Amino acid sequence: MTTAPRPTAADLDARDPLASYRDRFVGADTPLVYFDGNSLGRPLRATGPRIAAFVEQEWGGRLIRGWDERWYELPLTLGDRLGRVALGAAAGQVAVGDSTTVLLYKLMRSAVAARPGRTEIVLDRDQFPTDRYVAAGVADECGLALRWIEVDPSVGVTPEQLAATVGPQTALVVLNHVAYRSAYLADAAVLTRIAQDAGALVLWDLCHSAGVVPVELDGWGVDLAVGCTYKYLNGGPGSPAFLYVAERHLAELTQPIQGWMGAEDPFLMGPSYVPATGIRRFLSGTPAIVGMLALEDMVDLVLEAGLAAIRAKSMALTEHAAEVSAELLAPLGVVLASPPEAERRGGHITLNHPLMREVTAALWEQDVIPDYRDPNGLRIGLSPLSTSYAEVRAGLESVRDVLEGLTA
Amino acid sequence: MTTAPRPTAADLDARDPLASYRDRFVGADTPLVYFDGNSLGRPLRATGPRIAAFVEQEWGGRLIRGWDERWYELPLTLGDRLGRVALGAAAGQVAVGDSTTVLLYKLMRSAVAARPGRTEIVLDRDQFPTDRYVAAGVADECGLALRWIEVDPSVGVTPEQLAATVGPQTALVVLNHVAYRSAYLADAAVLTRIAQDAGALVLWDLCHSAGVVPVELDGWGVDLAVGCTYKYLNGGPGSPAFLYVAERHLAELTQPIQGWMGAEDPFLMGPSYVPATGIRRFLSGTPAIVGMLALEDMVDLVLEAGLAAIRAKSMALTEHAAEVSAELLAPLGVVLASPPEAERRGGHITLNHPLMREVTAALWEQDVIPDYRDPNGLRIGLSPLSTSYAEVRAGLESVRDVLEGLTA
Repeated sequence: MTTAPRPTAADLDARDPLASYRDRFVGADTPLVYFDGNSLGRPLRATGPRIAAFVEQEWGGRLIRGWDERWYELPLTLGDRLGRVALGAAAGQVAVGDSTTVLLYKLMRSAVAARPGRTEIVLDRDQFPTDRYVAAGVADECGLALRWIEVDPSVGVTPEQLAATVGPQTALVVLNHVAYRSAYLADAAVLTRIAQDAGALVLWDLCHSAGVVPVELDGWGVDLAVGCTYKYLNGGPGSPAFLYVAERHLAELTQPIQGWMGAEDPFLMGPSYVPATGIRRFLSGTPAIVGMLALEDMVDLVLEAGLAAIRAKSMALTEHAAEVSAELLAPLGVVLASPPEAERRGGHITLNHPLMREVTAALWEQDVIPDYRDPNGLRIGLSPLSTSYAEVRAGLESVRDVLEGLTA
Repeated sequence: MTTAPRPTAADLDARDPLASYRDRFVGADTPLVYFDGNSLGRPLRATGPRIAAFVEQEWGGRLIRGWDERWYELPLTLGDRLGRVALGAAAGQVAVGDSTTVLLYKLMRSAVAARPGRTEIVLDRDQFPTDRYVAAGVADECGLALRWIEVDPSVGVTPEQLAATVGPQTALVVLNHVAYRSAYLADAAVLTRIAQDAGALVLWDLCHSAGVVPVELDGWGVDLAVGCTYKYLNGGPGSPAFLYVAERHLAELTQPIQGWMGAEDPFLMGPSYVPATGIRRFLSGTPAIVGMLALEDMVDLVLEAGLAAIRAKSMALTEHAAEVSAELLAPLGVVLASPPEAERRGGHITLNHPLMREVTAALWEQDVIPDYRDPNGLRIGLSPLSTSYAEVRAGLESVRDVLEGLTA
């Protein structure tokens, strides 16, 4: 009995229905191997000229009139489009603006205020640092305690763990949809329900899933979510983040940073702050319009390619990376620190080895760009629309060569 | 006895040492009259191509490496340059990021925490709405009261008023350097000293002065300041704001939005938040790099032109506008709602008439773009590097024509 030979990277590229999208991105025609689209996605080729045209025609031509004509609503209209295309959110629940950190702060404060008398914020020990830092600050100022779930990083928070942790004392549960180190993909529907059954609100951090993993915020019954737009949504360095507040909470929740853009009538400039109805009340200051332009283009591209197709290629890419790693790197002592099944991972894998910090530095010298994350993790981010299978193969061959050199 | 005839707009343009700068801005070659550079400054011609080049070469070419190479420090290096060129601030005290509203929130919370036991925030009734809204929110959550100074909008807060208001109960005084309606220019050194003599901290909002009025934060002994960059600093719609914290306070003050970019070592991603030393501790999330690029160019231009020359032209422009208004508009019942002396004004003047809301709408129809501010105010913003005297004359002639039509 024989088995069919495993397809090569060239085979996989030849069959890839999304292969042609790679040409839409700056730099895809260079030999550089980019494994860090999960930290900062490549720009679309259209983005530079489009921003230049914006500066000349829209900012320079419409000037202050641009606010009335388009920009004032852009945080909400772009939020609606993003919600529809990538988040499974009906209109009126998503807004774009601020940084992820600032939005985490607003929503954690909102949630805690909406659950008076409850004394704990639950989160997991392996959560992205900003989530933990913001929660610590909010807990301090509001007199709550943090309650940590100790997780196996390659497994994430289990339903059993969460059920054993939440209770009548829980105001808020903060969870990452895709773990930033292991790429573990949480079962958001199940975990949301467990937290809500205890009367808590749930805040999902979607930074590592938005644009690459299908998200169904409405369908899962999520309360609150935030995410960034510079990873798989290619918004550019420091592009504005987004937040989601379920429609059922919009009348009740408010947020602490009371600015004119979140007021009922910003240009009334009245004597006191009256929060806008709807998701606008979660805005604060003047929205970062120039920072939203690249994201606008990318949301269109995600719609065109289709999130289901993007997810299919994402799983195939991480699977290919895991297989090539097993072939080339496992003999050198490299261990997959991500879930072994593609459907339980987000868009990256992490490979552990005690020398990965040195490996990363050496790879950067030769234009192979992964990320390093303590402890010992080489993080291989794979952006489905701009990464080829050949790039995966070439990059992992470089990892092997470097590691062989370091251990020779 | 005869007096020399008043110089015409053409005379003034011919003698203007800064006249040539106008050509550096998009749209200065069109007939549009732009009186709203104090809401959104025109883009530099260099800005569009410069951002496009950034997208292609720096974001697209350096990718994630850009953070190590330049972006991670940009909020502080650009802050230092802005501080030196426009704010009278030595290095290490200014950071660029977030919106003005978010920075007001951070600094108000900082200040209140640094004055425990004090029970009031003092501000004036005519302050820009966001300042008032943020202060109301901070007062609510921290259990403080707001104490209002009732001002004559064309005069602003007087030293006597402030001295009669502050005392051992005052935690913080929040003031606008240039009033957003009247353009009244506060004596920041004197008012700062009065507040500090009562043991309070002072937070100056520089939105309407940064880049057009010389500011001497160190020289005046200011504690805290914020400002926006999209008015006279031409940073674009929603460009990031800046904050200033005097060096003597940097060890003591912290802020509530604890994010990874304000942590001592962001990439340590350690178990708990340790604020960075220095001004970095006032950052929170990932900085908006694309949004800072236009500002970078404009700071260079302000340095090249010189803030003293900019202020001289600014005063000459508002004086010309006031004179032309006296000639053309006073006979129609229009009243100058700004201080009569140029040295007591910022970069705009406000003209009051009961029909100004309708006048503004009609002017916009004919490509004359001032701003309207309740009640009855036509706000004429004059950007010294992009506004000509002829533009002022032409615009005010249009105001006359429209007003004559409406009152005929």
